[in-house]
Amino acid sequence: MYRPEIKILDCTIRDGGLMNDWRFDKAMVKDVFDGLAKAGVDYVELGYRADKKQFDPKDSGPWRFCDEEDLREVAYECDSKVSIMCDVGRTDYDAFIPASESIVKLVRVATYVKEIDKAIHLGKHVKSLGYPVSVNIMAVSHALEPDLDEALGELAQTDFEMVYLVDSFGYLYSEQIHYLAEKYLKKLPGKQVGIHCHNNQELGFANTIEAIIKGINYLDATIFGMGRAAGNCQLELLLGFLKNPKFDIRPVLDLIQKYFVKMKQELRWGYEIPYAITGILNKHPRAAMAFMKGVHGNTFSEFWDELSDAEEA
Amino acid sequence: MYRPEIKILDCTIRDGGLMNDWRFDKAMVKDVFDGLAKAGVDYVELGYRADKKQFDPKDSGPWRFCDEEDLREVAYECDSKVSIMCDVGRTDYDAFIPASESIVKLVRVATYVKEIDKAIHLGKHVKSLGYPVSVNIMAVSHALEPDLDEALGELAQTDFEMVYLVDSFGYLYSEQIHYLAEKYLKKLPGKQVGIHCHNNQELGFANTIEAIIKGINYLDATIFGMGRAAGNCQLELLLGFLKNPKFDIRPVLDLIQKYFVKMKQELRWGYEIPYAITGILNKHPRAAMAFMKGVHGNTFSEFWDELSDAEEA
Repeated sequence: MYRPEIKILDCTIRDGGLMNDWRFDKAMVKDVFDGLAKAGVDYVELGYRADKKQFDPKDSGPWRFCDEEDLREVAYECDSKVSIMCDVGRTDYDAFIPASESIVKLVRVATYVKEIDKAIHLGKHVKSLGYPVSVNIMAVSHALEPDLDEALGELAQTDFEMVYLVDSFGYLYSEQIHYLAEKYLKKLPGKQVGIHCHNNQELGFANTIEAIIKGINYLDATIFGMGRAAGNCQLELLLGFLKNPKFDIRPVLDLIQKYFVKMKQELRWGYEIPYAITGILNKHPRAAMAFMKGVHGNTFSEFWDELSDAEEA
Repeated sequence: MYRPEIKILDCTIRDGGLMNDWRFDKAMVKDVFDGLAKAGVDYVELGYRADKKQFDPKDSGPWRFCDEEDLREVAYECDSKVSIMCDVGRTDYDAFIPASESIVKLVRVATYVKEIDKAIHLGKHVKSLGYPVSVNIMAVSHALEPDLDEALGELAQTDFEMVYLVDSFGYLYSEQIHYLAEKYLKKLPGKQVGIHCHNNQELGFANTIEAIIKGINYLDATIFGMGRAAGNCQLELLLGFLKNPKFDIRPVLDLIQKYFVKMKQELRWGYEIPYAITGILNKHPRAAMAFMKGVHGNTFSEFWDELSDAEEA
């Protein structure tokens, strides 16, 4: 698949940070940024910009906050642009300097459908400072259709550059990806549409391909699939699929060998039965992550029964 | 997806045996058969029937040979039927007793396109003894189109019940699965068509779904994805997808917890970079399996370069 409009956004440090509280050391993140730049990746998301009044910086690594000076220590101006994410309700509006003074070239606002108005408010603030803005609607597999339609309608009226389709629970199958991709593209004329998949049912890469086939051009991926719970679409598989000659898989393979094989053994993202169960059942992965840490004392089958019976997400 | 015609064939012991030389102990295989029967799986493939004149029984576990008495020790007559596989050129024609005396209810002949005439010869012998026969055309991603068309044309003229589309190298993407599924279904009127995927690019489950969408009804899967190299479509994910009430995922979850989590840590099937590389590059996984055993002393990038440059498969 060679379509020059396709852009890859690597969010290894941001989504992967959900597995280690963003405790990546700076030398490693510097290596990651450099390797991704050499691989030709278009955007590198280096973390969240969480509100330090809500989250004590002592409790997490620096990539939960993405201070400008930390970003400048690990990244440099090049064709690979720095992205950061901020969550509705967890963001200090005053933490953003004007875009002209920042190394950040994209700010992504993560929201649930029900908080879309807050997301638009936050996006407008960020946009007013000069940043390109994406709104990422999480957990779309839990959204009611009329609510989603209304949210997309409101986003269509903004001047934000981008909207992302996000399968937070790794629940969606290809036919649902097709349906949603068509909806987003139709309802958001003139905007870029992106896809962010989780891998609970090992459909992260497959669903990203399906989104490409439907015309989505912004693709999230992570190195070795590192991300919350089962993780994300693997960057290396995506690079193997895309035939754009600007991409080079080898720097990513080097990073995997140097850092990620070992980290995966310790942190255990990827295909694991508890993650698969929450994916199949369209549930938030938090129960699976607790199960993986041994909090649940029960069997896989009991976990299945418990979640099958659970009313709430 | 609820389509009553859909049948699942579990080939954990047969394909998984490629990772441990079929050294599964009988109590475990008995447990596996029983769990799969409780899960409602339609066929259970318990191994190969390899020629004992070519392969010394002392070098492998019993499931490389599938002697009738070994099968009867672990399986019983029920709605889950016993299947075995035999390879063209590695099979002793005299090792088959009449079907009426056997617990085996399906014999699958594995072949490359170039050996299709031998496969048909072997299939006819087996069929003459009363067994239903499937021909599984391996490594279809290496087949030349006219050769494949000719092979399917020859198979169409047999009275074999089934033909399988096999992505041995885990190379195919959804659009290629669609194309091939349509071809097989069109060229094999009146026959059942099956799909057997490998998971090198984590597309095993995804591609199986795509085959279902195109109308393929016989689905191979393995418990926890156990199979050669990256393994196969995960049975548990497939059961989560299919809505036929006759299936129950829980006995499979129990088997995974009891046996397969530990085996996977030791044998290392699943998503690994060397397997992904051979998948992306449409190569036989043997080089990746050697790499995993440390035979290659080089890096992932060097392995990528070496295989990218290699002329032959």
